[in-house]
Amino acid sequence: MSAAKHQRVELPADSREKSDAAIVERLQKCADRTSALLKELLPPVAGPEGRVVEAMRHGCLNGGKRLRPFLAVATGELFGVPQSETLRTAAAIEMVHSYSLVHDDLPAMDDADLRRGEPTVHVVYDDATAILAGDGLLTEAFTVLASPETHPDSDVRVALIAGLAQASGAQGMVGGQMIDMSPDREEFDLDGITRLQALKTGALIKFSCQAGAILGRANREQYSRIDAYADDLGLAFQVVDDLLDVEGTTEALGKPAQQDAQAQKATFVGQLGVAGARQKAAHLAESAIAQLDVFGGEADPLRQVVHFVIERRS
Amino acid sequence: MSAAKHQRVELPADSREKSDAAIVERLQKCADRTSALLKELLPPVAGPEGRVVEAMRHGCLNGGKRLRPFLAVATGELFGVPQSETLRTAAAIEMVHSYSLVHDDLPAMDDADLRRGEPTVHVVYDDATAILAGDGLLTEAFTVLASPETHPDSDVRVALIAGLAQASGAQGMVGGQMIDMSPDREEFDLDGITRLQALKTGALIKFSCQAGAILGRANREQYSRIDAYADDLGLAFQVVDDLLDVEGTTEALGKPAQQDAQAQKATFVGQLGVAGARQKAAHLAESAIAQLDVFGGEADPLRQVVHFVIERRS
Repeated sequence: MSAAKHQRVELPADSREKSDAAIVERLQKCADRTSALLKELLPPVAGPEGRVVEAMRHGCLNGGKRLRPFLAVATGELFGVPQSETLRTAAAIEMVHSYSLVHDDLPAMDDADLRRGEPTVHVVYDDATAILAGDGLLTEAFTVLASPETHPDSDVRVALIAGLAQASGAQGMVGGQMIDMSPDREEFDLDGITRLQALKTGALIKFSCQAGAILGRANREQYSRIDAYADDLGLAFQVVDDLLDVEGTTEALGKPAQQDAQAQKATFVGQLGVAGARQKAAHLAESAIAQLDVFGGEADPLRQVVHFVIERRS
Repeated sequence: MSAAKHQRVELPADSREKSDAAIVERLQKCADRTSALLKELLPPVAGPEGRVVEAMRHGCLNGGKRLRPFLAVATGELFGVPQSETLRTAAAIEMVHSYSLVHDDLPAMDDADLRRGEPTVHVVYDDATAILAGDGLLTEAFTVLASPETHPDSDVRVALIAGLAQASGAQGMVGGQMIDMSPDREEFDLDGITRLQALKTGALIKFSCQAGAILGRANREQYSRIDAYADDLGLAFQVVDDLLDVEGTTEALGKPAQQDAQAQKATFVGQLGVAGARQKAAHLAESAIAQLDVFGGEADPLRQVVHFVIERRS
């Protein structure tokens, strides 16, 4: 989408109101169930290896919106899959998301001491334990997905595993993080930033939606709508992240604000200005919601979460 | 096994001779095919994310005995599975082994500059790239196993994925590495060292053999023999590793010698002395080979590799 296309897009007022009321509660319920399951999937372990399990728990149990689990669950519900049947997959995705944060926060990477208002894993433990905890979370995600408890059909499990690995590896999240550390990072133009974010954060957000579609055995048309929805949502998410980095406070964010400016990273806000970035986020939100037109009222949570994503304060 | 049981065990002379001639060639052929496949599975990538793929290639293409791929292939052959059908699984296992070395070599962990005679990944690139390269290799292993090219039956693929994840995670390799960094590490007794090694190196060696049995659809009795063989072999491997650390040279090992003594780690040699450790290795070798009695001549490569493991000089 070119910068010239950004007209101010007003979202329909009624869906905005619904969003505030319903979505926050829905997200919280899903977050609570995800956290409870993560605790169950990662029980404390005795012996000297217990330390890495503690660190894994710290890395994935310190709050968080659990947006990715919510997307998996809400997409599954589109196809009549009950939350209880999506939740293990959702937890596996959150393990991968959490591992990426644990590694990204390391001194050798972004060197972040604070995450979700808590000291990061390498601060509480040490760098070596944080590296291993990330490795452990990534690995455990595949253990969870490979289990028949996640889905009785091994074709479905293997599709989930292939999708998660693809979204997370060098062609996805890992590649995105590598791009983010590129020496040319300060000079990226809008296309460069868009591609970076599509890999770094977009790929896993997209897979979260795809996971619900896989579990729901969506048809090709439905699958492609979900993909397009997820692409728009993922990009909107990142544009808002850049806005929050500029406008938010460390207290509200639970992590240091103005990190991008300090690192002199090119961002959507840097390219488009604050007003332009807001317009872009609104435009992407509208586009995401339009992708859901083929679905009925069952897609309301997916519609509402778009508003939540662009209106969030942290 | 208690120290009192260690009687000097002479290996049958004829199987020793066979070992020298046949196994080195077999291992080399399998190593070459594994390396060729790894290159194919990790093609260079353009763009700024290409750096992490280069680092992944450096991490898994710098030689190595490829013992784990060989074990997968040789175990598969026991059940009539041709090498071509085991090789992708073997390559996935080697990716996981390589990732563990890339992360273990980091300054925050063992801080090793040299591996297989080459500078380690974080020395050639940097710490952040090495962390990401390890993450990428681990993730890619699951992409490979999830593909129908690895095996047409998704039940088989999912069994491979579950086994690899289990062997590699907090209950396996990651847990073992955590134990290895325990503050009590200097004080470990023989049981402590044995348990540490069973997780840190034993679990993935064991899974390498199990992978061949999974692909070969081994029956329960065969599976349990393979398990017992792999347990003995994995422990023998580590006892010899401890001996090489004491007796080897940096030049022959391709990595610094006397690392354990410098780190004041408790080892099998420290507990048993050089002669006692040699006896233990020989005893374990004999026990591993005895587990293969139920198999015929098809098990000769697995017998010969036991000799190779305990007689190796690097």
